[in-house]
Amino acid sequence: MKVVVGSPGTWSGLLLRTGQCVFAGASIGVMVSALGFSNYTAFCYLIASMGLQVLWSLGLACLDVYALKIKRDLHNPVLVSLFVVGDWVTATLSLAAACSSAGVTVLFARDVHFCRTIPQFSCGRFEISVAFAFVTWLLISLSSLVMFWLLASV
Amino acid sequence: MKVVVGSPGTWSGLLLRTGQCVFAGASIGVMVSALGFSNYTAFCYLIASMGLQVLWSLGLACLDVYALKIKRDLHNPVLVSLFVVGDWVTATLSLAAACSSAGVTVLFARDVHFCRTIPQFSCGRFEISVAFAFVTWLLISLSSLVMFWLLASV
Repeated sequence: MKVVVGSPGTWSGLLLRTGQCVFAGASIGVMVSALGFSNYTAFCYLIASMGLQVLWSLGLACLDVYALKIKRDLHNPVLVSLFVVGDWVTATLSLAAACSSAGVTVLFARDVHFCRTIPQFSCGRFEISVAFAFVTWLLISLSSLVMFWLLASV
Repeated sequence: MKVVVGSPGTWSGLLLRTGQCVFAGASIGVMVSALGFSNYTAFCYLIASMGLQVLWSLGLACLDVYALKIKRDLHNPVLVSLFVVGDWVTATLSLAAACSSAGVTVLFARDVHFCRTIPQFSCGRFEISVAFAFVTWLLISLSSLVMFWLLASV
């Protein structure tokens, strides 16, 4: 199995996983601080999906640290298959959460003009949280592509 | 290059492409027939994205028919790379469109109860159109996976 940038058990892989955790955590933090987010299903789903992303990425980051510490090779077909499935599932869920929240945010900002007419509505925070969710999706999709490439090139 | 189910220039590939065209076209048709869809950015984006999907899948379906007719092999790394990029881009756009429209539809149906309180609101059609968009995404993601697998296993 080839070793490419972002492979499991490498420094670049650890960096990718840490980035995913940080941005997913930031997305949750900003959304939770927005007033009345819990009235909207899409925003609750964003928090659930980003929470799952944090758990998954944190687990794999710990595994990367362990592999780097004891210099263990994680390029084993069974392990990589597991990473591929997990990465694809969380990447799809993250994109779905980011897009559904973006759809609702655009509705509030552009279609019904809630952001202009109701000043106490936390539009800015919704937008920042959605932006962080999209960055998380970009990072996890990068990991997914690397994993799938590794698996397919066995 | 291996030939797997759904490869370009095969009967299964042609069936997949036809399915994508049919469901994307149905999604557009149902959305266009819904009253007042054009007031919402997410629904307009769904139509644009499904339109692009119809064009892309129709083009590749024609290529499949041509390849089947003259018994030409389309398993060439340059062609497959082109298919991979196109498939991944349209699959991501389709999922984004389906999810953003689903977010807005769920908001109308569950969060603000427009569907119950405003009977002339075409909630049912929005839901059917979104469901067709998700089926389109499932079919195009299947094609994308097959293409990526073909490319990676060269």
